[in-house]
Amino acid sequence: MTDFPILPKNKIKRKPDRGHYDKETIYQILDEGLICHVGLIQDNSPLVIPMNYARQGDTILLHGAPGSRLLQAIKNGAEACVTVTLVDDLVLARSVLHHSMNYRSVVFFGRGTLVEEYNQKKEAFKTIVDHIIPGRWDDARQPSDKEIKQTYVVAIPINEASAKIRGGPVVDEEEDYALPVWAGLLPLGLNPAEPVSDERLDKNIQLPAYIKNYTRGNKT
Amino acid sequence: MTDFPILPKNKIKRKPDRGHYDKETIYQILDEGLICHVGLIQDNSPLVIPMNYARQGDTILLHGAPGSRLLQAIKNGAEACVTVTLVDDLVLARSVLHHSMNYRSVVFFGRGTLVEEYNQKKEAFKTIVDHIIPGRWDDARQPSDKEIKQTYVVAIPINEASAKIRGGPVVDEEEDYALPVWAGLLPLGLNPAEPVSDERLDKNIQLPAYIKNYTRGNKT
Repeated sequence: MTDFPILPKNKIKRKPDRGHYDKETIYQILDEGLICHVGLIQDNSPLVIPMNYARQGDTILLHGAPGSRLLQAIKNGAEACVTVTLVDDLVLARSVLHHSMNYRSVVFFGRGTLVEEYNQKKEAFKTIVDHIIPGRWDDARQPSDKEIKQTYVVAIPINEASAKIRGGPVVDEEEDYALPVWAGLLPLGLNPAEPVSDERLDKNIQLPAYIKNYTRGNKT
Repeated sequence: MTDFPILPKNKIKRKPDRGHYDKETIYQILDEGLICHVGLIQDNSPLVIPMNYARQGDTILLHGAPGSRLLQAIKNGAEACVTVTLVDDLVLARSVLHHSMNYRSVVFFGRGTLVEEYNQKKEAFKTIVDHIIPGRWDDARQPSDKEIKQTYVVAIPINEASAKIRGGPVVDEEEDYALPVWAGLLPLGLNPAEPVSDERLDKNIQLPAYIKNYTRGNKT
């Protein structure tokens, strides 16, 4: 896959060795994330809202009620900054100020448009549901025309994208390695606990495999 | 604790029943989160950057290299929007378009200032390290004066804050409850896996209890 061009807006200036501009890296992070943080300018102030999303080709899909201020602003042409952050490890160094975090984040900019054509819109909903819970769409009750019409979907092109990644071990000052302080990584992951069946669920309905085996990450 | 006033900027307009303005709720979410997403306006575009943080009283502390564009902008008076989002459950309804997520998020606005006084700055670093890993500060090598001087800390007052919370069970259309589709919650949490000792760690150094028992949430 091709790389995103390195432009003033997406160039990683602090710790440039952590910057990545290739689609494969960027799309892998976007495909693993569950929520993005969407930044807009509203009434001359920055506004950052968490949203579910899914990637569809070279765009990100967001959905919500037509009354959503964020979707209205995007529909009306506002520029959005979309950020997805995955936390991988706490990095415990021997000195307090060398502590760090291993993470993977993506930032991109784009102006979105409403998805209005019926089949495209239905496909967008499928993409979002299956992004969050792969396999779920085909298993649940399909949307009615009315439900599809009642919800907004916007597509934001993934432009001026970059990823920033911190991986690897602790880095300490050479003289600190001899200190009697535990050092290492504490891996963190967004992991599922035991599913909780709905109170009104028919006891004969089995837990689906895609919930039993649900995991984020390593989706490639 | 007192509530934040409900102002045009922080009023929850979509699903107002999910809005909360009391400090206890808002600070509990801020104290559980590991990263915040900071929104700024830069060159007339929105910019959203993930950052570690900690709450100290009625402010949020951020730290980083003096060269950080984000810290420079905050130091120079830029307004920031800070958002912290915790994901609790995937909500699997019987119909695809009633799927949801249980989450807790906080959004607030503020203009920050540099923390420059030596003792305040050192206390700020302690607050940040102990927010991420409670108990770590006293156990690791303390910062030198030079290290403290080489890092920036900014404090952003927590103004115009609100929380938005979706909790509770699946909500389906009444006629859908009879469908043979599994429905319920899949709890998700940012959980630690096995710690990985640094390659150069002296084998006699024991894993500290605060890492062995590390957990986010339920910190109250």
